[in-house]
Amino acid sequence: MRNSIYSIPVFIAIIAGMMACDSAARKGVEEPFAPVEVYPTPPRPEGQTHVLELRTEPLETVRVAVIGLGMRGQGAVRRLSYIEEAEITVLADVVPANVERAMETLERMGRPEAAGYTGADSWKEICKRDDVDLVYICTHWDLHTPIALYAMENGKHAATELPAALTIEEAWELVNTAERTRRHMMLLENCNYDFFEMATLNMAQQGLFGEIVHAEGAYIHDLRSLLFREEGGYWNMWRLGHNEKYDGNLYPMHGLGPIAHALNIHRGDRMDYLVSVSSDQFGLTAYAKEKFGEESDYARREYRKGDMNTSIIKTVKGKTIKLQHDVTSPRPYSRIHMLSGTKGFAQKWPRTGISLEPDGHSWLSDEELEEILKEYEHPIVTEVGEKAREVGGHGGMDFIMDYRLIYCLHNGLPLDQDVYDAAEWSSVIELSRISVKNNGMPVKIPDFTRGAWDELSRVTYYTK
Amino acid sequence: MRNSIYSIPVFIAIIAGMMACDSAARKGVEEPFAPVEVYPTPPRPEGQTHVLELRTEPLETVRVAVIGLGMRGQGAVRRLSYIEEAEITVLADVVPANVERAMETLERMGRPEAAGYTGADSWKEICKRDDVDLVYICTHWDLHTPIALYAMENGKHAATELPAALTIEEAWELVNTAERTRRHMMLLENCNYDFFEMATLNMAQQGLFGEIVHAEGAYIHDLRSLLFREEGGYWNMWRLGHNEKYDGNLYPMHGLGPIAHALNIHRGDRMDYLVSVSSDQFGLTAYAKEKFGEESDYARREYRKGDMNTSIIKTVKGKTIKLQHDVTSPRPYSRIHMLSGTKGFAQKWPRTGISLEPDGHSWLSDEELEEILKEYEHPIVTEVGEKAREVGGHGGMDFIMDYRLIYCLHNGLPLDQDVYDAAEWSSVIELSRISVKNNGMPVKIPDFTRGAWDELSRVTYYTK
Repeated sequence: MRNSIYSIPVFIAIIAGMMACDSAARKGVEEPFAPVEVYPTPPRPEGQTHVLELRTEPLETVRVAVIGLGMRGQGAVRRLSYIEEAEITVLADVVPANVERAMETLERMGRPEAAGYTGADSWKEICKRDDVDLVYICTHWDLHTPIALYAMENGKHAATELPAALTIEEAWELVNTAERTRRHMMLLENCNYDFFEMATLNMAQQGLFGEIVHAEGAYIHDLRSLLFREEGGYWNMWRLGHNEKYDGNLYPMHGLGPIAHALNIHRGDRMDYLVSVSSDQFGLTAYAKEKFGEESDYARREYRKGDMNTSIIKTVKGKTIKLQHDVTSPRPYSRIHMLSGTKGFAQKWPRTGISLEPDGHSWLSDEELEEILKEYEHPIVTEVGEKAREVGGHGGMDFIMDYRLIYCLHNGLPLDQDVYDAAEWSSVIELSRISVKNNGMPVKIPDFTRGAWDELSRVTYYTK
Repeated sequence: MRNSIYSIPVFIAIIAGMMACDSAARKGVEEPFAPVEVYPTPPRPEGQTHVLELRTEPLETVRVAVIGLGMRGQGAVRRLSYIEEAEITVLADVVPANVERAMETLERMGRPEAAGYTGADSWKEICKRDDVDLVYICTHWDLHTPIALYAMENGKHAATELPAALTIEEAWELVNTAERTRRHMMLLENCNYDFFEMATLNMAQQGLFGEIVHAEGAYIHDLRSLLFREEGGYWNMWRLGHNEKYDGNLYPMHGLGPIAHALNIHRGDRMDYLVSVSSDQFGLTAYAKEKFGEESDYARREYRKGDMNTSIIKTVKGKTIKLQHDVTSPRPYSRIHMLSGTKGFAQKWPRTGISLEPDGHSWLSDEELEEILKEYEHPIVTEVGEKAREVGGHGGMDFIMDYRLIYCLHNGLPLDQDVYDAAEWSSVIELSRISVKNNGMPVKIPDFTRGAWDELSRVTYYTK
């Protein structure tokens, strides 16, 4: 299912060489260098149509199987227990103690008992059960796509923790499977539901920033101690493994999700190409030397992941998006979340502020900021924000996400995030890796909607 | 002297096509795409050697000709008047009133009268005068290189407001002329002398941040009202003209200068290649429509400069630098000035803060920040900072710059910024433009030291 990483440079060199030769020969010498289309868009299979704004049968109760009960899964079980229209019918993890813990949560919350699974392949059986409407995937990264595909093939909706896909091939499989089976496939991008992000989305949609020209997002999170934690960290240290094997932006979704919605990506605009450059790797080795000794295994390992990856995306409507990823440097947490338009500007990290015309060069005062955030509070936050803060999960955004997912499935409404969001946001993982390996060569971003990106005019979070 | 902009895309397409074909054919298909060497490094002329750490004859009094007395020149005259070892002997501007105003400053400051010039070509005559040691250039951008070259050819040192060169060809002319004439050529990059920047340079050199892996700089400054000011703005509205004619990063030096010194660029590391992507242009047109009407000339003009330009530079030692330029969006001022290393992190805009191991993920408190900035105050700031704050000029940094320039010339010491700095920092203007025109194609950055970039081990600001 996944391409071998070793074949990529060869593949690219061929494509790049061919494209450039071809371009020089065919177009003459007057055209600029074109972003390289490493992954041409496959034609849509016969009889299949897009799933933009897909509506499915309303579900009185949304029966959920939570697969993967590590860091994220445990929280999901707790949060979903607060939602009346959801019922967790299955709990699965390869670690039996994790299943037990989740069972206890259900009991404590006064919710019905769920079926428990601990086999490594049990997700296949779970996807076939007839008491499951939604498969909620919280496993390690490598299983996200396989389980989501299998769930849809078996008539279930799928929601997955980040990322939805690790390769372009996986992203296309998600899109094709969702289009063929007419099932929902949602990336559980919680950051889209954070309070400031929701408010700025509302501001953007009401035109407060004018035309948004440039946006920035990031995943800057010092994970060094967690990456090297042998017990109680990532199962089997899978996340360190990704830092050993891959360069590029390993986790673009948190930064990209909220700004992609503010920019109406595939609802009137489309990501066209990206360039991506990584620093070399310094951080993990320096940390391992300090913590485990110069001669330790961790200090001597090769980590491909450069500390800081920076990517720039250009859209067909001429906007730019800057994305960064750094989980191995000692610095304060940041997703940046910045929107810059012709009439205003907002940024969340490292300083939360807004500036607006006619005084665009000045930050709003603390009082003005508070006031405007209240004025533009997103209606969904007004509806459920208080409860979200009580339930918690990254301050509440996790609960709003779960609430919205269940709400839309319950009411038969389109989900806030569709399969194209999942594919686009996750595609940056492989596309950035390709660009990095080729010294920042511009790489075309597939149009996962296959031409339908301008059918809708904006992002809508539906309510009844 | 300057290449026509219209020839560039043609030139690039040829080079890119040839390189890629050649690479595919010669190297086989296993090599990644290589940054395109649009401007190969010309061989060093026979008998010429580098001017790294150039020392020239000490000057008891540094006799200065200030050419260009608009916004920046007036301030320079005032500041230089505070420095005993400097004497302004010539004042020149095409606007007679500007010359008069500067004369009055000299009188008010109790300094000797200077010779005045108002002819458009008078800089040639001035460069030939024998009562001038240093030609201090504050004209509009297009004259910076020609005057600097002419000054050196006539045995004078040259210092120029930003940028030093608008094209790679101009940058090479500066380097070759400085090497041949053995004269100093300094870019007047005041931002290197700002207080936080000086402190973080000191911290970097003392290892507080560990190995610096990634750095960011910017010129984000809402200049819209100034760009469109017909009277009392930029002479003849030259700066709007640049926004009409050119895309890319028009003004990279403010962001790049301080971080290039912290990274020891051409003192042990070297900028290898860059990628650059601009948003389309929205801001100037939106502003002009609002301010001058939909049908106004300004609203109908074509502006090539995309609002936000983002560039990523990779160094040969594996570090990355992110640079941005946006002078047409309503947002608060920022040069970012960020340094991220294996042991610590510092950033100036939009939030001034530092974080250090072992709590790298947390910002120092306000008290800790104040304390560490005091502890690591740069010795030059300790020496002259108080006076600089009194004299002013962007809060004092302008004065420290002038003070250091005169101090080093007076004592026959190498200048803080050499001609290679000037060439490198300014070269991003054309290199980013080329990359932007080619959809972010990676472009090689010339080694202006022609192989001498690793002879020195770090940046030094010399004192007696």
